[in-house]
Amino acid sequence: MQVVVDLCLVPLGVGVSVSRYVAECHRVLLETGLKHQLHAYGTNIEGDWDAVMAAIKRCHERVHEMGAPRITTTIKLGTRTDRDQTMADKVQSVEEKLK
Amino acid sequence: MQVVVDLCLVPLGVGVSVSRYVAECHRVLLETGLKHQLHAYGTNIEGDWDAVMAAIKRCHERVHEMGAPRITTTIKLGTRTDRDQTMADKVQSVEEKLK
Amino acid sequence: MQVVVDLCLVPLGVGVSVSRYVAECHRVLLETGLKHQLHAYGTNIEGDWDAVMAAIKRCHERVHEMGAPRITTTIKLGTRTDRDQTMADKVQSVEEKLK
Amino acid sequence: MQVVVDLCLVPLGVGVSVSRYVAECHRVLLETGLKHQLHAYGTNIEGDWDAVMAAIKRCHERVHEMGAPRITTTIKLGTRTDRDQTMADKVQSVEEKLK
Repeated sequence: MQVVVDLCLVPLGVGVSVSRYVAECHRVLLETGLKHQLHAYGTNIEGDWDAVMAAIKRCHERVHEMGAPRITTTIKLGTRTDRDQTMADKVQSVEEKLK
Repeated sequence: MQVVVDLCLVPLGVGVSVSRYVAECHRVLLETGLKHQLHAYGTNIEGDWDAVMAAIKRCHERVHEMGAPRITTTIKLGTRTDRDQTMADKVQSVEEKLK
Repeated sequence: MQVVVDLCLVPLGVGVSVSRYVAECHRVLLETGLKHQLHAYGTNIEGDWDAVMAAIKRCHERVHEMGAPRITTTIKLGTRTDRDQTMADKVQSVEEKLK
Repeated sequence: MQVVVDLCLVPLGVGVSVSRYVAECHRVLLETGLKHQLHAYGTNIEGDWDAVMAAIKRCHERVHEMGAPRITTTIKLGTRTDRDQTMADKVQSVEEKLK
């Protein structure tokens, strides 16, 4: 089952700046080889359900290892059985309607 | 790793009423034995990360099997290493400050 | 326009415990008279769009006034034109399917 | 109060394809002059709290006018009092840590 995810991980108890932790999550995603794209309020990821979920778990583990005692994460997550749809397809589909 | 989750699964392409699908997710959760609690905009679940994530995947599979061609899900997900915290603890912690 | 909302406000830069800030948001909601219900990963609110949004803004202002330099909030928000639906209706609608 | 928002509006009861409605929200945002950026699972918006919230309300109204009887929206919303931070700043802050 393919999934497109929007991941927004927020470490608590580490002060006001969290970019160091978000960057570490990107290193985790790079290690997995999953296609992903940073945006201003999260990171989009696409791939097989199990691979994406394993990557998100690894992000939590890594951020805790960096010293964050608490994490709250918001995930949006889409699956469909009628057809394949990538992150690029989703953006393109909207942009075509804007022409 | 223990996790507290807020799950809100929304099937698309099945009309305006989605309660039948949400109810099926509750049957999935009952089958797993995970502690969970329905509220007006989702369902809270607590348990081991892998067990909770397997349950959420099973919800997607089941709702697709029921005929929904597309699902968009919003998840909030909390982990902490400083101490254990259940769903009941979280509510109680706020209510104590309100006294 | 009536709205049902799930609000989860997270202050950053104030340490690992956030229940004091969540409790303050509940005081804000009590002042507004809006119907609301705390759960383990947020607070559900129902009412007129403008009144609910004004309350959420007031929560942000109040939590900043308490000293939190940064806030990240996740909101789920539902509107419908086909019929009225309260928070209680939404829960009941699922529970009926579970019988 | 400045805010950075991630908006993901999902119309229900209009079939499986929702890009037509997302495109209409982009027209609403273009009319407002607010800075915004489409991504694969939502749209980021930055600006004054009241202006951004008025735009989101207008999106709901417009999508209902297009015939969608029900909408569920997920919003992430960040404010800070310690310093100004734009959408571009947030991305840059993470990218610098990745160098």
